[in-house]
Amino acid sequence: MSHPIQFLLRAKEMPTHWYNLLADFPEPLPPPLHPGTKQPATLDDMKAIFPENLIAQEMSAERMIEIPQEVRDVYALYRPTPLLRAVRLEKALKTPAHIYYKYEGVSPAGSHKPNTAIPQAYYNKLAGTKRLATETGAGQWGSSLAMACQVFGLECTVYMVKVSFHQKPYRKLLMQTYGAKVYASPSRHTAFGRKMLAESPDSPGSLGAAISEAIEDTIKNHDTKYALGSVLNHVCLHQTVIGEETMKQMELAGEEPDIIYGCAGGGSNFAGIAFPFLREKIQGKKKFRVVAVEPASCPSLTQGELRYDFGDMAETTPLMMMYTLGHKFMPPSIHAGGLRYHGMAPMVSHCKKLGLIDAVAVTQTKVFEAGVLFARSEGLVPAPESSHAIAAVVDEAIKCREEGKKRVLVFNLSGNGLLDLAAYDTYLSGEMQHPTSGGGA
Amino acid sequence: MSHPIQFLLRAKEMPTHWYNLLADFPEPLPPPLHPGTKQPATLDDMKAIFPENLIAQEMSAERMIEIPQEVRDVYALYRPTPLLRAVRLEKALKTPAHIYYKYEGVSPAGSHKPNTAIPQAYYNKLAGTKRLATETGAGQWGSSLAMACQVFGLECTVYMVKVSFHQKPYRKLLMQTYGAKVYASPSRHTAFGRKMLAESPDSPGSLGAAISEAIEDTIKNHDTKYALGSVLNHVCLHQTVIGEETMKQMELAGEEPDIIYGCAGGGSNFAGIAFPFLREKIQGKKKFRVVAVEPASCPSLTQGELRYDFGDMAETTPLMMMYTLGHKFMPPSIHAGGLRYHGMAPMVSHCKKLGLIDAVAVTQTKVFEAGVLFARSEGLVPAPESSHAIAAVVDEAIKCREEGKKRVLVFNLSGNGLLDLAAYDTYLSGEMQHPTSGGGA
Repeated sequence: MSHPIQFLLRAKEMPTHWYNLLADFPEPLPPPLHPGTKQPATLDDMKAIFPENLIAQEMSAERMIEIPQEVRDVYALYRPTPLLRAVRLEKALKTPAHIYYKYEGVSPAGSHKPNTAIPQAYYNKLAGTKRLATETGAGQWGSSLAMACQVFGLECTVYMVKVSFHQKPYRKLLMQTYGAKVYASPSRHTAFGRKMLAESPDSPGSLGAAISEAIEDTIKNHDTKYALGSVLNHVCLHQTVIGEETMKQMELAGEEPDIIYGCAGGGSNFAGIAFPFLREKIQGKKKFRVVAVEPASCPSLTQGELRYDFGDMAETTPLMMMYTLGHKFMPPSIHAGGLRYHGMAPMVSHCKKLGLIDAVAVTQTKVFEAGVLFARSEGLVPAPESSHAIAAVVDEAIKCREEGKKRVLVFNLSGNGLLDLAAYDTYLSGEMQHPTSGGGA
Repeated sequence: MSHPIQFLLRAKEMPTHWYNLLADFPEPLPPPLHPGTKQPATLDDMKAIFPENLIAQEMSAERMIEIPQEVRDVYALYRPTPLLRAVRLEKALKTPAHIYYKYEGVSPAGSHKPNTAIPQAYYNKLAGTKRLATETGAGQWGSSLAMACQVFGLECTVYMVKVSFHQKPYRKLLMQTYGAKVYASPSRHTAFGRKMLAESPDSPGSLGAAISEAIEDTIKNHDTKYALGSVLNHVCLHQTVIGEETMKQMELAGEEPDIIYGCAGGGSNFAGIAFPFLREKIQGKKKFRVVAVEPASCPSLTQGELRYDFGDMAETTPLMMMYTLGHKFMPPSIHAGGLRYHGMAPMVSHCKKLGLIDAVAVTQTKVFEAGVLFARSEGLVPAPESSHAIAAVVDEAIKCREEGKKRVLVFNLSGNGLLDLAAYDTYLSGEMQHPTSGGGA
């Protein structure tokens, strides 16, 4: 009698390949530039911080890239992940829309981040790296990389944005349980961190600053490489395993999406769900809308400029063509720490420029309102990052009700909120701030 | 080349029936007794606290009991859960043993508890209950019931053992996010709580005391019923969905277990994995060993007496035939709060008495040592409760190595440790106590 609400894949149905959207862009992605010469960055320029196998992947024009068996064996801890239909949310909204969500929160770190942490640790291990240095915002990326390093036998050092270090002690503990070293950024561990602290002792930190610290640590230690949890092409690539699975699961569900949603900070979880669907859109096979949802307080896609900018605050990365609020932008301390980044992945920025995707921005209180509605109807507490997508889906579902139209909405529930409960507490007790814009640094 | 390490079921392979071991015991389970008359408790005796449909299930002699579709629709949020082979743990231990774990931590509450919370909320809703009152230790049960009540439109009040209320603030926040009212027990909200506080203002509380508070709250409010997260027959029954899935998945894996492990506090997650396998053992089809693993500091099965005892401290429940440390026993404040109970489920106790299962006790530091080993090799942080099972599995795997024997070990990884990271921190910083026995009340 009841309609199916759950679409699970077998182990053997896990995708064997990632999808590389670079191969299909109607016009090529502008290359990253060397910050000194302003010439396209070369493999040699990047070798100081990344292993060659990952640089090759970053620049690859191959359409489908095989997922190594060793990576699939660790993916198997939590992949394939479920696709579910949110029938109880539909009912609560009295909407004719059909709402589906891809749930990445079943991973050991509770989010989609292991999808790229695992291959990054694997390729570094192959290349002889001994230690990885990285930054983390809310801690989802740092804990995923800590896990992946532990599994492949690498050391791991994490610079964690100071505001999250204090707001999210459990994620810090998770990294330590996985054996990583964790510093609150800005830290006294790097010259850049010490300089920031001297200028602004109470700085809450930012992803851009933490990246600068991790890169400095990498450059000064030759057995160390750097790993980034979003923004770069190879990160977006690794996340496409999400969308590849979702397409198979929507076939099981027997429906075609009208609109696909992902929250967007650096852009990788959005890329993960969106890019495989964009392949079909570019090929003219399908017509769906694809929507990136960002915080109103850190609105790179909706308010930023498309131009070459640095990926970090200290101006050490190559220049990337992206929608940016400026690399000195200091985002306010919103609870969705994973979305506090001044720029947007070049590949996602390019999609926006080419008109392949739309972008909307939502406020923090609206995000938590949607998150609590989802938790109380569906039974799952979403990560505040993912609740950005939920907020946009709820708006559309209400519109469907008002227009009396059934549309099929699919979103990426990129993580669970079990380690974000302090933020829910702040919201439920009525003490949440409502930041709508950040200040300059 | 690589052997399969993951055994997933499709949505339609979710079991349609729970298994009732009561139907197959070689000798009948001694009935609960009315505390006044000492006669077998009747349906009428229990109607004050439970709805009739659940009492009927508690006493049912039916072998296979159908899982209502409405319950399966909510199970679909996270079931069927994965069975995984712990190849990286095997490698770390250099053991010829094959180690499999059934992973219940993918549920929205991060543990197996929703398996019974969902049907209990459903049957209460059917019976016209408006509110459920319950107790919780570590908060896994309370958050599961809060979730289930929210989904079925019931109110929920939780008495949370005071030591956990303070040690595990995130689980309290999770219950509140699901809309439940949460009191630290002993509380000023009941006469029993006020009496306890008067006698012992600094009491850390216990499950037995929190049960007394929840039952008092139930009896004083006629629209309210009581829900218990372990111990009772119908709770063990609902958990058998774990073992039923595991049996199908071991068939996919193409191996037969030699030994099956579950941690045991009240007994329900152990019952969940064990009972379906015991069915085959009783029928003489299979010969596996089945092992319950309990904390050395709360050792009801290994150190307790088999006799009639109360389920709660205030002597309000029926008398149950069980292994018990005495209902006035106050367990030490170990971090595996979910295992701090003075007695053992009557059905599990009966299994022990009949020689169907074995029991071992392990110390807290050994438990965390095993938990960290598992986290760092497999990549998943286990709940401290589940780490009891891991500790016993590790011991056996080492024995297999020493004897040069391959045995197939299967355990229930009943929950993840994402909300228990403060306990890992205590362990990793070398500050963990090593309690081996509790004091009287």
